[in-house]
Amino acid sequence: MYVFKTKKRVRYAETDKMGYLYYGHYAKYYEIGRVEALRDLGLSYQKMEDDYGIMLPVLSLESRFKMPAYYDEELEIVTQLKELPSKMITFHHQIINPKGVIINTAIVKLFFVDMKSNKRVETPAHLAEKLHPYFKSTNKST
Amino acid sequence: MYVFKTKKRVRYAETDKMGYLYYGHYAKYYEIGRVEALRDLGLSYQKMEDDYGIMLPVLSLESRFKMPAYYDEELEIVTQLKELPSKMITFHHQIINPKGVIINTAIVKLFFVDMKSNKRVETPAHLAEKLHPYFKSTNKST
Amino acid sequence: MYVFKTKKRVRYAETDKMGYLYYGHYAKYYEIGRVEALRDLGLSYQKMEDDYGIMLPVLSLESRFKMPAYYDEELEIVTQLKELPSKMITFHHQIINPKGVIINTAIVKLFFVDMKSNKRVETPAHLAEKLHPYFKSTNKST
Amino acid sequence: MYVFKTKKRVRYAETDKMGYLYYGHYAKYYEIGRVEALRDLGLSYQKMEDDYGIMLPVLSLESRFKMPAYYDEELEIVTQLKELPSKMITFHHQIINPKGVIINTAIVKLFFVDMKSNKRVETPAHLAEKLHPYFKSTNKST
Repeated sequence: MYVFKTKKRVRYAETDKMGYLYYGHYAKYYEIGRVEALRDLGLSYQKMEDDYGIMLPVLSLESRFKMPAYYDEELEIVTQLKELPSKMITFHHQIINPKGVIINTAIVKLFFVDMKSNKRVETPAHLAEKLHPYFKSTNKST
Repeated sequence: MYVFKTKKRVRYAETDKMGYLYYGHYAKYYEIGRVEALRDLGLSYQKMEDDYGIMLPVLSLESRFKMPAYYDEELEIVTQLKELPSKMITFHHQIINPKGVIINTAIVKLFFVDMKSNKRVETPAHLAEKLHPYFKSTNKST
Repeated sequence: MYVFKTKKRVRYAETDKMGYLYYGHYAKYYEIGRVEALRDLGLSYQKMEDDYGIMLPVLSLESRFKMPAYYDEELEIVTQLKELPSKMITFHHQIINPKGVIINTAIVKLFFVDMKSNKRVETPAHLAEKLHPYFKSTNKST
Repeated sequence: MYVFKTKKRVRYAETDKMGYLYYGHYAKYYEIGRVEALRDLGLSYQKMEDDYGIMLPVLSLESRFKMPAYYDEELEIVTQLKELPSKMITFHHQIINPKGVIINTAIVKLFFVDMKSNKRVETPAHLAEKLHPYFKSTNKST
């Protein structure tokens, strides 16, 4: 399993009339979670598109809102990969508020598309390589 | 069952580097769907907050992205209530592109909160009344 | 002079903690104003990019916020071209609330870029043609 | 004069079809600049609203776009106060890309509103105090 944590503060731009972080903005928090997780692995999503010609459209999003997030709170975004990606990559997220409460959980599934052929492809080798070390023990037990 | 349809055009502001409607913006389309559905029923969400002191935070969001939406496409937002709300209200959405293809489906669950007590409450009477006619036959058949 | 009017409702997604339309979202209203103005002239911005290879980056934005806009208000976006475009096109906007009050004014300047050469170009002929009739009398008086 | 610098990365959510940071999103960068500048001074905008009952609506925004910003670039937001605020506070911003190029400049004017009376007020004392040390020499020369 691979876990990565990063932080983002709730901005005025993201609040709504209720004083909450608007439910539509969480998608951006998940984006930050997965992109920074890839960067932490030594991978740049920008390079994946520009150098490898691979893009990752989102297939599905499931999000549960347990508690609101408020203006100026610095939220922790926890991003987990629970299994090696294949034709699809699944990110599990938790959003944690400054009091340590999990206020939101989400599962975001993306797939790999070759930008030239516009067709779905397997996990790019350079990503698979980076992830392998985190899943070795799991493979043994299977 | 209650069904309502409205339209919204994809704006430049909503596109991303891939040329797609960014996945985080669909939440706004669902918002438009449910608010305009309520308005069609003779209810104003603004009045629900300001006059009745009831707000509707989102509990969960499930979204499946089947095909991308592109800049300037006028998308149809189909909003369905498949059952009468109780402590929760469940909206089913379909987003349909100009070619008639269902590009996205979503289920959004919200609950009712009394803004004074900050506690969850049952469906407000004025909303239940408006919805009853659409579900009468269903009740009989059950 | 060419004037065009269109409407857009303030969505929850666009409100902030103060209950106002967030100041950053007005840029989207100006976008809607200028794109719908072009469409009214028989021009599609989408076609301008895709068929003519011309894009219009924004050069400058000046915006004055006179009064707040609130949730669910249907705002009128007035878009004016006060002179024929040359190397630049200047849109003048007024945002008017349901009470008829001008709550915001803006000037947005854009320029024309040939997407192949990535260089600035003059107003495309097909746009100039559409606009000429609205400025004929002005030419005479000069 | 008071100067503060902070950074923000361009997210996919903020790019548009041209691959640029959408012009409407710069307003959020200015927000981050001014809020983090206040925090650096030992002031919290959140507390200004919640504890002091003062809010700062935006009066005007002037923005010049010199060069585009691209996906994943970490932009530096430079925020300057060139004079002590009175009934109004004026923030000067520069957005600088990773190559050190100033790609955008802006002037944002805000005013102080007492949330109880809903009336404009002078600069709150606790803000004036924090800023005075940075402007002492200027006072001498006047």
